[in-house]
Amino acid sequence: MKNIIIASTSTVHGSGYLDYIVNDLERFFEKAQTILFIPFARPSGISHDAYTEIARKGFQKINKRVIGLHEYENKAEAIKTADAIFTGGGNTFVLTYQLYKNNLISLLQEAVYGGIPYLGTSAGSNICGLTIKTTNDMPIVYPPSFNALALVPFNINPHYLDPDTSSTHMGETRGTRIREFHHYNTPPVVGLREGSWIHVKGQSIILKGDLSARIFEYNKAPYEVFPGTELNHLK
Amino acid sequence: MKNIIIASTSTVHGSGYLDYIVNDLERFFEKAQTILFIPFARPSGISHDAYTEIARKGFQKINKRVIGLHEYENKAEAIKTADAIFTGGGNTFVLTYQLYKNNLISLLQEAVYGGIPYLGTSAGSNICGLTIKTTNDMPIVYPPSFNALALVPFNINPHYLDPDTSSTHMGETRGTRIREFHHYNTPPVVGLREGSWIHVKGQSIILKGDLSARIFEYNKAPYEVFPGTELNHLK
Repeated sequence: MKNIIIASTSTVHGSGYLDYIVNDLERFFEKAQTILFIPFARPSGISHDAYTEIARKGFQKINKRVIGLHEYENKAEAIKTADAIFTGGGNTFVLTYQLYKNNLISLLQEAVYGGIPYLGTSAGSNICGLTIKTTNDMPIVYPPSFNALALVPFNINPHYLDPDTSSTHMGETRGTRIREFHHYNTPPVVGLREGSWIHVKGQSIILKGDLSARIFEYNKAPYEVFPGTELNHLK
Repeated sequence: MKNIIIASTSTVHGSGYLDYIVNDLERFFEKAQTILFIPFARPSGISHDAYTEIARKGFQKINKRVIGLHEYENKAEAIKTADAIFTGGGNTFVLTYQLYKNNLISLLQEAVYGGIPYLGTSAGSNICGLTIKTTNDMPIVYPPSFNALALVPFNINPHYLDPDTSSTHMGETRGTRIREFHHYNTPPVVGLREGSWIHVKGQSIILKGDLSARIFEYNKAPYEVFPGTELNHLK
């Protein structure tokens, strides 16, 4: 049974790494001694080792051991035998490129469908959607495909931002970009604000956190859904 | 001899379409009766016809006729015989996809190297760089390559934005994203603020407009260059 947390961000303004969600993660990772960390998204280009160290410190708070996937020679085996998996944020294109390069896409899908708890933050959440076509990241490397893990029947837009009505900037708002997405693609998009997450448990897909999320469906005006809402009807 | 204007945006806050640059465009397009408009980037997903109408109205101010490239059955011939070319903004991935799909990349390069004046704004400027890897746009379609027209020896980041020091948002700043680009790519990036443009004339590449631009070079601290600066040393 799928058991997934898809979080908008690892960190909310003014608090430490994963702090806002750590109590929920303690329950979520209850049965896991060790968390396999996928550091491939490399935020700000930091090394896999340095990034894994950040995750390690974050999970010390709830007494979990963290091992970086890059530390394993046999990455397929590491995923198959993991207690739990956490993919951190950074650049979604870099992450996707590395997952394809290491032939890990279907292995990760099998692991998650097989019941291994999966946590994603930011880029690690983007890849839970059908495609990475609603990432906010810069396309700094060319992945072999934009198709992602498709663990939920929609796309994710993490770090969702409402339009800044005081701005004089002429670049597109997030909402405009997602509307452009719907000129070429039909899947729904969940705009997940920082501090929000989605908990997938089997067939259930529930919005969590204190904030509402913005839902963009094809040929429909965008609308808000509130914490506790079941999202498994979206498709 | 190359003759190119690479503009950050079509419109600056508080003024009309192309208004801020229209006097320079009148000189730039002096010898052109008709401008071939490439509407493929479709901002907000508007139709090729509707987008061409916007460009047409914009160029009425300086008495130029505008024809959309989509109106031609034989697009290759339209490019080869154009007086001048203008590629408008919108989504860079959609634009790049369409250029590849219609086999127009090398034709556009030949046209520009052959001396046909080329104006790009926003996405139309992004494609003047080596690759589209420093676009701000959402990857809503998957182009066959991120390689662009390479009309200048660097990449462009249009709508360049300084970090908002009052923001509580945890998404990456533009500067962070460009630094991430340099973990995987070595070409310089010109962060072109709204209201700035670059005029390429033969070997010369001059920053124009009232604002400075931010230059990001591999393994170097970013720095500002001021209007009138010759950028042809960047590579």
